[in-house]
Amino acid sequence: MTVSPFDHPLLSAFLGDEEASRHFSVEAEIEAMLAFERALAEVEAENGIITKDAAAAIVAGLGTFRPDTALLRAGVARDGVMVAELVRQIRAAVGEPHGASVHFGATSQDVIDTGLMLRLKSVVEHLGLLLTETIMRLASLEERFGDRALTGMTRMQKAIPIKVADRVMAWRAPLQRHQERLSEQSRRLLVVQFGGAAGTLEKLDNKGPAVRAALAAKLGLADAPQWQSQRDALADFAGWLSLVSGSLGKFGQDITLMAQGATDIALSGGGGSSAMPHKQNPVKAEALAALARFNAAQLSGMHQALVHEQERSGAAWTLEWLLLPQMVVATAASLRLAAELAGQIESLGH
Amino acid sequence: MTVSPFDHPLLSAFLGDEEASRHFSVEAEIEAMLAFERALAEVEAENGIITKDAAAAIVAGLGTFRPDTALLRAGVARDGVMVAELVRQIRAAVGEPHGASVHFGATSQDVIDTGLMLRLKSVVEHLGLLLTETIMRLASLEERFGDRALTGMTRMQKAIPIKVADRVMAWRAPLQRHQERLSEQSRRLLVVQFGGAAGTLEKLDNKGPAVRAALAAKLGLADAPQWQSQRDALADFAGWLSLVSGSLGKFGQDITLMAQGATDIALSGGGGSSAMPHKQNPVKAEALAALARFNAAQLSGMHQALVHEQERSGAAWTLEWLLLPQMVVATAASLRLAAELAGQIESLGH
Amino acid sequence: MTVSPFDHPLLSAFLGDEEASRHFSVEAEIEAMLAFERALAEVEAENGIITKDAAAAIVAGLGTFRPDTALLRAGVARDGVMVAELVRQIRAAVGEPHGASVHFGATSQDVIDTGLMLRLKSVVEHLGLLLTETIMRLASLEERFGDRALTGMTRMQKAIPIKVADRVMAWRAPLQRHQERLSEQSRRLLVVQFGGAAGTLEKLDNKGPAVRAALAAKLGLADAPQWQSQRDALADFAGWLSLVSGSLGKFGQDITLMAQGATDIALSGGGGSSAMPHKQNPVKAEALAALARFNAAQLSGMHQALVHEQERSGAAWTLEWLLLPQMVVATAASLRLAAELAGQIESLGH
Amino acid sequence: MTVSPFDHPLLSAFLGDEEASRHFSVEAEIEAMLAFERALAEVEAENGIITKDAAAAIVAGLGTFRPDTALLRAGVARDGVMVAELVRQIRAAVGEPHGASVHFGATSQDVIDTGLMLRLKSVVEHLGLLLTETIMRLASLEERFGDRALTGMTRMQKAIPIKVADRVMAWRAPLQRHQERLSEQSRRLLVVQFGGAAGTLEKLDNKGPAVRAALAAKLGLADAPQWQSQRDALADFAGWLSLVSGSLGKFGQDITLMAQGATDIALSGGGGSSAMPHKQNPVKAEALAALARFNAAQLSGMHQALVHEQERSGAAWTLEWLLLPQMVVATAASLRLAAELAGQIESLGH
Repeated sequence: MTVSPFDHPLLSAFLGDEEASRHFSVEAEIEAMLAFERALAEVEAENGIITKDAAAAIVAGLGTFRPDTALLRAGVARDGVMVAELVRQIRAAVGEPHGASVHFGATSQDVIDTGLMLRLKSVVEHLGLLLTETIMRLASLEERFGDRALTGMTRMQKAIPIKVADRVMAWRAPLQRHQERLSEQSRRLLVVQFGGAAGTLEKLDNKGPAVRAALAAKLGLADAPQWQSQRDALADFAGWLSLVSGSLGKFGQDITLMAQGATDIALSGGGGSSAMPHKQNPVKAEALAALARFNAAQLSGMHQALVHEQERSGAAWTLEWLLLPQMVVATAASLRLAAELAGQIESLGH
Repeated sequence: MTVSPFDHPLLSAFLGDEEASRHFSVEAEIEAMLAFERALAEVEAENGIITKDAAAAIVAGLGTFRPDTALLRAGVARDGVMVAELVRQIRAAVGEPHGASVHFGATSQDVIDTGLMLRLKSVVEHLGLLLTETIMRLASLEERFGDRALTGMTRMQKAIPIKVADRVMAWRAPLQRHQERLSEQSRRLLVVQFGGAAGTLEKLDNKGPAVRAALAAKLGLADAPQWQSQRDALADFAGWLSLVSGSLGKFGQDITLMAQGATDIALSGGGGSSAMPHKQNPVKAEALAALARFNAAQLSGMHQALVHEQERSGAAWTLEWLLLPQMVVATAASLRLAAELAGQIESLGH
Repeated sequence: MTVSPFDHPLLSAFLGDEEASRHFSVEAEIEAMLAFERALAEVEAENGIITKDAAAAIVAGLGTFRPDTALLRAGVARDGVMVAELVRQIRAAVGEPHGASVHFGATSQDVIDTGLMLRLKSVVEHLGLLLTETIMRLASLEERFGDRALTGMTRMQKAIPIKVADRVMAWRAPLQRHQERLSEQSRRLLVVQFGGAAGTLEKLDNKGPAVRAALAAKLGLADAPQWQSQRDALADFAGWLSLVSGSLGKFGQDITLMAQGATDIALSGGGGSSAMPHKQNPVKAEALAALARFNAAQLSGMHQALVHEQERSGAAWTLEWLLLPQMVVATAASLRLAAELAGQIESLGH
Repeated sequence: MTVSPFDHPLLSAFLGDEEASRHFSVEAEIEAMLAFERALAEVEAENGIITKDAAAAIVAGLGTFRPDTALLRAGVARDGVMVAELVRQIRAAVGEPHGASVHFGATSQDVIDTGLMLRLKSVVEHLGLLLTETIMRLASLEERFGDRALTGMTRMQKAIPIKVADRVMAWRAPLQRHQERLSEQSRRLLVVQFGGAAGTLEKLDNKGPAVRAALAAKLGLADAPQWQSQRDALADFAGWLSLVSGSLGKFGQDITLMAQGATDIALSGGGGSSAMPHKQNPVKAEALAALARFNAAQLSGMHQALVHEQERSGAAWTLEWLLLPQMVVATAASLRLAAELAGQIESLGH
């Protein structure tokens, strides 16, 4: 389906990012959920919560498990999440008597939120690399053209002369700050979610924290107390995504304005028009502004989702799923487009 | 791909609407674009802009036309829209000498915006039917339980007794106003877009308005002067979509609160929990609140898109594509879920 | 205080609108509330709910009533609304035995929402006049310069020549549609609010509808059943406000872009710079873009407020107060600035 | 004037925060601007940019300077900022020949943005103290009631029992993370703005960086290269403000839901109703939800403002003034209300 350009077979070539999108495919989603259940079984056996035989059976069952997606789909329509049905299928695959040890002490939210974190770990790496690349391309522009003059523009009017380096610094410095911010955020973001039915890991007696720590370690995430109703790390990350696309929106807007005047810039590439064959439209630059404004709108919803009542809010939680994956892809696409656009700049300044 | 739940093979069963989504498939999109080009050729021949032979060749060519989607994808990545490449392919399919008469005097925006309107025409019908059904189901609740007492709640505290009919009216009356609003809006919304390169239909000499009127009539849309940079009808429609999902969000929130107390309501259905087998979660009701808040966030972006500079803004226009289809599906899903939820209410009041 | 530029003694000269702001002063607010209580007493006496003597005493008491604002302030801090304390003060002013007949059968929300409608009635008139004036000034530009040529700009690149009239039409036509929309909306918007404690007018036996209709007539509002938890008319009006400021944002952005190139436009006025004495900044045009984007953000909140639970939601209702007055003033300011800007255009086109 | 509840003489007692608002009064604003001009003169003399006599004259002039606010108001209406007129008045007050040395090498944006940072420095202190107090009050609740049982609620349905401590931790832990975040942000936020007309300090030859560093030190801000078109620190801070009000919105929503059931909580205070004398409305709790949703909407606008074109954008910059002060006061009010609400909790759990 193609309701969102990020999922659109054609538009995604313009506005999307294949690698970022892959992290939100059903395959990646289910794979992460299975990774959770496998790791949970392993650490629970290590901590004497379930038997070693049970863990072995679960791991073996998961190894050959193929989900029945039609039943998963029906499960989601009924439960609002796929996990209850998925766990039922896994239990059936593992068989008796060890099926009962699957997902012991966990709840759907543990699987879904941890699964999201596993994928965000890869996303953060991917975005970090894209960010580095874009910064390098901007640095390259600074090296090549930095000493040239540029007409400074304030309040959309000619001001005094500046250097190309001054303009490029305004594009680059924020991105470097975003790298710092991501580093600060990551330790709070990439944490395991494990709290059980209502956050108290009531089925694990006093072994909850130990099992959780082991689970985190096994999954390569940081350990932290459950955060089932505390959504600030995700809202903060959404803010970071929008800071990046916003800064790149300024870059795009600046290129668009420079291309309009056709002074101070020479661009290769450029999009064609069906009506005016001579035109070279700075479409990537415009897309950057669109993606910036898109993410700024989504961010509002991610912050509305902070009002997450009690131990678990279906309404607030579901709202996140409608927003965050798109913000990730929008930012990845922004970084990709910015790097491409920077690479198309043949000359800056005079 | 599945970045958006509306495109997600599993989550769309919960949060999506299949029929609404179909209108935003690539197939439906391209079909609408081809319908534009066909109708344009026909009316241009009728008005002596192109020859009858050319029109016949174009119609015949379109009849067997199969787009090369790989090239379309490359075209989008380069041009920001698929139309320039699509037109090139159609021209090639029609062949010489008549290929040159394809898309005569039109621009990409005419094809894309009109194509959107063709699909919104069906969308508006679909939403209108869903709206009617939901209103009927609420009316049925009023018939069955309207005279019963209900504990009125103000500021989340028990107030005085009211009747079930009073509460149901608060769900139903807004929906009836939304029907009125849709009726008022539709005549301004479902109009043809035809302005050519920069809105002046410069290639049609003085026949522009006549051709445009004929084009509108042939496509079953209303005629109106071009609105390439005037996006108010779309922003207004986005507002309507959010009014509907917002009103249904209140309905969902009210059911959720009633279900919490488990007095004054009995529901069938309800979602299961992977951790607490006894639970019946009012997941549809919660989804309504999530979809309401989702659309409220998107709406902000559609209004940012009103700042659409000059004769055509790539940035503002692209922003619409990122937002409007999703708002349509969110509202369709809200109506579907509300009708289902209303159908699951076995008893209201006491 | 000056947290908002609309209330700022200096910035409001740039971004505000004095007349619109006056409708949201405490004086105007309280005056409208007193008008409600007076009208209510009168129609309740006419309908035999309270005695004629009581009504006379209430009208007389209100005639000389001066609120104790310190106590009102304390009342708001405690109750979240000022009405309970205001009614207490009015009752004391009216004295025994008739004080008990003050506010009979009404609730705070009736007073506050109706009071808002009384002020919105004046606001709608004011905005209507500003809209007409702005349309006329644009029509004047079309008359004076319409036949001149203008460089059409698409995707921020030179396209083909158009006429000044084409560009001015893109500014004007939406405003004319907004006039139509306002007309459609007004009949649904400017209605009385009268429902009593939980919307059922339970204290008026079967006379509720008659008293409500009389109250509406006396206050010059349309009659309608209570809408205490149905906020769609207000959210729709907020959408209208943003449609207007959004369309004017495009106008401002277009002027800014034209002024940048300094071709095709000559402007008088223009703001000075503290650093570059020669500069003439198109500050009004930029302000239009800022106000457009401001209102687009606020609109999201007004739609979140549609999720108004049960018979009265303090949370959703309070959210409206934080947003709607500002949206009104932003739109009034946009219209004012647009009219001034249009008046500063000395020449368009070439 | 009272368009915003934060400036409303009555509503601000409920929804505002006096101390936070004071930082946005015209007096505080102008005071900060004068502090900038004084410090600039001093460090410019120290660095040989202007003479010591000029600096002395400027400092003396500023010491007795009273702005003509009517002329400032006219200046804002014309220039979009008050600074050009303010500097003219200061120059006149300083007199010849030293008036020419006022504001040497600076631009309006340096004064306004640095003035904002001076006030945000105090704001950040104030918010930090409020945050600490609220955390302490929550810790106190945990101490007093932590071991008691509470009915865990998931998806608005009764789940399993938890402890009061678990619920209170969900309120408290995010606030502690917000303290960490504020600490990380502050070093990037509270920096001087000094770039001159187009960010290059062109009038200071090669002494720009040294003068800027001295200016920062004298004003008690960190030094950093100019950030006139780089608005990420402000957008990030706006995100922090919304994270705080969002987390407190959850607290408010939880209290509201607990108060609804009237089990598991006993509250003192509570607002009265004009129609139902017995009611105790949890108005502070509801206000927290309203303020959370308010800030989430504003945040979208602050991120739109990241698309700040070229060396200075009047449109994007003005948008910030319409949003940020309100977000600050909303968050301060949230903290105040949350602390008061926590203080009104007489009992939690069973």
